[in-house]
Amino acid sequence: MSIDLEKLDLPQYVKGCSLKELEELADVLRQRIISVVGKNGGHLASSLGAVELCIALHRVFDLERDPVFFDVGHQAYAHKLLTGRAGAFERLRRIDGCSGFPNRDESTYDPAAAGHAGAAVSLALGRAAAKEHSNEPGVAIAVVGDGSLSCGIAFEGLNASKACGKKLIVILNDNQMAISPNVGGLSRCLNRVISGRRYNRFRKAVKECLSHFSGYRTIKKLINRLEDLIKGALLPPGILFQELGMRYIGPVDGNDLGRLLPMIERVSRIDGPVLLHVTTRKGKGYAPAESCPQDFHGVGRFDIASGKLPAPSATSFSAEFGRCMTSFAESDSSIEAVSAAMTSGTGLTGFAEKFPERFHDVGIAEEHAVIFSAGLASGGKKAVCALYSTFLQRAFDCIYCEVVLNKFPVVFAIDRAGAVEDGATHHGIYDLGFLRQLPGFAIFTPASTCELESMMKTAFSLNAPCAIRYPRGAGAQCQELNGVVVQYGKNHLIQSSDSDIVIWALGAEIDTALAVASMLKERVNIVLVHFIAPFDTALAEQLRHKRHFTIENHCVRGGLYTTLCETLAGAAHGEITPFGWSADEVIGHGTVQELRLRHGLDAESIADKIKKCL
Amino acid sequence: MSIDLEKLDLPQYVKGCSLKELEELADVLRQRIISVVGKNGGHLASSLGAVELCIALHRVFDLERDPVFFDVGHQAYAHKLLTGRAGAFERLRRIDGCSGFPNRDESTYDPAAAGHAGAAVSLALGRAAAKEHSNEPGVAIAVVGDGSLSCGIAFEGLNASKACGKKLIVILNDNQMAISPNVGGLSRCLNRVISGRRYNRFRKAVKECLSHFSGYRTIKKLINRLEDLIKGALLPPGILFQELGMRYIGPVDGNDLGRLLPMIERVSRIDGPVLLHVTTRKGKGYAPAESCPQDFHGVGRFDIASGKLPAPSATSFSAEFGRCMTSFAESDSSIEAVSAAMTSGTGLTGFAEKFPERFHDVGIAEEHAVIFSAGLASGGKKAVCALYSTFLQRAFDCIYCEVVLNKFPVVFAIDRAGAVEDGATHHGIYDLGFLRQLPGFAIFTPASTCELESMMKTAFSLNAPCAIRYPRGAGAQCQELNGVVVQYGKNHLIQSSDSDIVIWALGAEIDTALAVASMLKERVNIVLVHFIAPFDTALAEQLRHKRHFTIENHCVRGGLYTTLCETLAGAAHGEITPFGWSADEVIGHGTVQELRLRHGLDAESIADKIKKCL
Repeated sequence: MSIDLEKLDLPQYVKGCSLKELEELADVLRQRIISVVGKNGGHLASSLGAVELCIALHRVFDLERDPVFFDVGHQAYAHKLLTGRAGAFERLRRIDGCSGFPNRDESTYDPAAAGHAGAAVSLALGRAAAKEHSNEPGVAIAVVGDGSLSCGIAFEGLNASKACGKKLIVILNDNQMAISPNVGGLSRCLNRVISGRRYNRFRKAVKECLSHFSGYRTIKKLINRLEDLIKGALLPPGILFQELGMRYIGPVDGNDLGRLLPMIERVSRIDGPVLLHVTTRKGKGYAPAESCPQDFHGVGRFDIASGKLPAPSATSFSAEFGRCMTSFAESDSSIEAVSAAMTSGTGLTGFAEKFPERFHDVGIAEEHAVIFSAGLASGGKKAVCALYSTFLQRAFDCIYCEVVLNKFPVVFAIDRAGAVEDGATHHGIYDLGFLRQLPGFAIFTPASTCELESMMKTAFSLNAPCAIRYPRGAGAQCQELNGVVVQYGKNHLIQSSDSDIVIWALGAEIDTALAVASMLKERVNIVLVHFIAPFDTALAEQLRHKRHFTIENHCVRGGLYTTLCETLAGAAHGEITPFGWSADEVIGHGTVQELRLRHGLDAESIADKIKKCL
Repeated sequence: MSIDLEKLDLPQYVKGCSLKELEELADVLRQRIISVVGKNGGHLASSLGAVELCIALHRVFDLERDPVFFDVGHQAYAHKLLTGRAGAFERLRRIDGCSGFPNRDESTYDPAAAGHAGAAVSLALGRAAAKEHSNEPGVAIAVVGDGSLSCGIAFEGLNASKACGKKLIVILNDNQMAISPNVGGLSRCLNRVISGRRYNRFRKAVKECLSHFSGYRTIKKLINRLEDLIKGALLPPGILFQELGMRYIGPVDGNDLGRLLPMIERVSRIDGPVLLHVTTRKGKGYAPAESCPQDFHGVGRFDIASGKLPAPSATSFSAEFGRCMTSFAESDSSIEAVSAAMTSGTGLTGFAEKFPERFHDVGIAEEHAVIFSAGLASGGKKAVCALYSTFLQRAFDCIYCEVVLNKFPVVFAIDRAGAVEDGATHHGIYDLGFLRQLPGFAIFTPASTCELESMMKTAFSLNAPCAIRYPRGAGAQCQELNGVVVQYGKNHLIQSSDSDIVIWALGAEIDTALAVASMLKERVNIVLVHFIAPFDTALAEQLRHKRHFTIENHCVRGGLYTTLCETLAGAAHGEITPFGWSADEVIGHGTVQELRLRHGLDAESIADKIKKCL
């Protein structure tokens, strides 16, 4: 039988068919996922591993009644295909196409948006409590990857599950790998359960011993009881979850529907809170991804036949940051780097290889990453904490309390600042709004990779907390940057004229500003903003009475526009018009180019609007 | 011997003296703590419990070389007295006096500021790693209360300890009570260890059994080994910490120096990471605090002889919030309340008693509190999440990702917004800077308790995420509020005139604004800001060309001033001058009145500055 995803009555279809048909369906889902991700990019390896799990959940539960909260959502593509979204899935991660993550607006089968790790248990627990208090039938399900367990929020949720989790089912989707390889004690425990060697060895010894003394019923009974207890002792994740108040079941092979389905059925009949430990293979069914799951975690467009991934760009902010770090660390042994499951993404792979002792990948645990950096700095180290802007949101309080208040000289390398393809949960467009309130906290905004080395040197020389903020990619390419020298607290009038117009560009937006300027009739003033804090008030003063336009890859509240408004508000000044991401609507997913067009942040739209303003 | 804290050579003194002298010292420290807190207020019960622990640490370690990071810092008063701060301690929590928390600027014995829970392990771990990489002698110590263990950050730190914690010692100061009684699975485990009943019962059974079969050496050996393993199984916190990579030792009575000292000495000789489980009695040595430790956690000035605490004010925002919640919940069964270890502080004690099923104190776990609220809302509940502004900083990402993006109608009751006595770590002056960036997120700022009920009704009616933000205390008392009706998105010109001057007051600052106005020569315009978002642009437009002064209990970046600057920046407008908490310096501790005077936010200073501006 050949299965046509577009024609099946999904998810109803999975309720009625045979195991063999379900296995065929799994193949079809896999092929579809591979073909679309090969074309559009996306999160491949986790989703391939969780195909059978998604099928099994739809088989056993009614996921409209029993909502499933996918943690992060990397593993939910099969779920999307199983819920009537095969058409939209062709435009995965494109504007108006299927989101790369669960999305409430997309389907009644997605009870909540996902994107950041560790939230699913708390969401499902809240939903389970609501169900219980409303006497609603059904359960709430959280599907959590093992990588998310290093995240404190996941622990907070599990720790609270006993209180109101009667209708809670947690599926631990254990593929033994987060985005970077897993770290931390808990992950070692999980690995040990699966190998199970200690327990099996011991069990054998007990059985052997028993066989000699089988006549002694008291001992036998005692030892049987001991065995149960010891099983718990030697299965620490089981006992951990049990002690946190959950019933622990597993592990079961999550890529074997014949084994998985009965386990999910069993779990569906148990009063919660219950945790089912499922092991899956990341990249399952696509050989290149199975052999290098990490490379195929999140990918851009790639060649499916060969499995060849496009070479990572050698000239990106991330790559240059990594190069500078390695170079600085060679001559300065006090430099240490901290990342949170984003070693490769932040460009630190080379540093990690060369200085393994001074590199700390703490797993998905941004708050710990920031506070640990503060601890390193308290011991005289030059700690550099490299995080994506979107994940830094998790650690605002720690930046303030542990770093800023102690004046510890932690340098934050804020990567992926600005809008990104992944959509609303992942845009890094709010960081300035919270960071620029902090006393004595400098914020550098380089325009191009060429400025990064100099800015990092300056950052280290401050001996105070600060951040360097840059977007994905290589930043600005314009010639006008040649000869611009980074000076602490100074912004640059890189094009000056008698014009009444001044365009302010935040860091890498200088390319957009120059493109906009080229579309205007007159030669205008252009300011490159290298520092949002401290802000160059002298330059602002000098330009006070001109007509201002600000361009930034940030929300229009809390960033460059806001800083300029505040700076000039104490006296009469020229009008100010912002170009940035709206603070009034959610910015969705799509290529950054698509998003810019949609929200009027491409050069042409900006130029048109400026012309209308004049 | 009578001990004079001012004359002792501290902490050297504790190194040389006898156990009896140390016990006398403990008494003297206790009496001093009680007398100063009775006079100035402060965190009494935890600090009384940890007196012997502080002495023992100073006895065994050189805390300049072996820095101790107190988690939260509620328990550090004896440490302050032991490190030459007896004089400053008399002015505990007063401006320029001793901070209520560890403070790096105060002593070389305070390696970092503390204030928010769960950070100490990560800080100490970073310091331990730095020590190791620098080949420095000594260790780094974290003292963590059991209440902090519900906090995800603490888990993140413990989970990472194996990686670089050779020089890490964690002291679990277990007084079996966080600020509110502890919740969660882990806390149940800890309690069980201490009672130890299961283990003792079982051990007895094993021994009895053994006595019958003592001839069988194989069985005896086997059972001995089993016993060790079972001990682990029945001591789950031990095994939990061990499995996370730490050596677990304890529990030991932390109020018995004779027992505690040898254990701390033992621990000092072990290669880390190691965790020592110490049990202490909250309130130890002061009968009223021992019998009601929760009431004596954080206290204002009180009568030492009688132990009578001043009655809590019946008219505070917190009390009124609690009253409204209980009243609404009576007629609306869908209302549920969530708090994070601040049941009493947020005014929810009555609600919790009346609707225990619909009240969720999740312990110190703000991120879970927010996401759990989102889960409740996803199930059709009207979830109200009551947190202090300072702790809400922990959950910014969760408010955005789980609440705002899903448009779940969670109402945030943000208590203690603005400056507070506790100092820098606790001021709630940054919340607007991060919250007002969020799409579709309304922010109400009531002036007085009289407006709260109406605002809460409006908040529920929005069926969308929103926050109501109010300071400690009862807010404004002015007559001018009579007759002001809360209208969504509308601010109020409560005093109008032909004057060129307009004073904008954020919520409860209306009292300050009126006082300021009374000191000016002319009758000025006064605006009461009930909504920071959505902001009343029509009213701002109407007043555009006047001379503006903004008064807010928030940082001058990101709040009212910023919003007004942005709103008016698109065309010519009158000058705007802000009065709020500086974004360029850390705001320390002291009574709020002292802080206002110091930072020019009292009515007289503001009026003077306005006069100079004109």
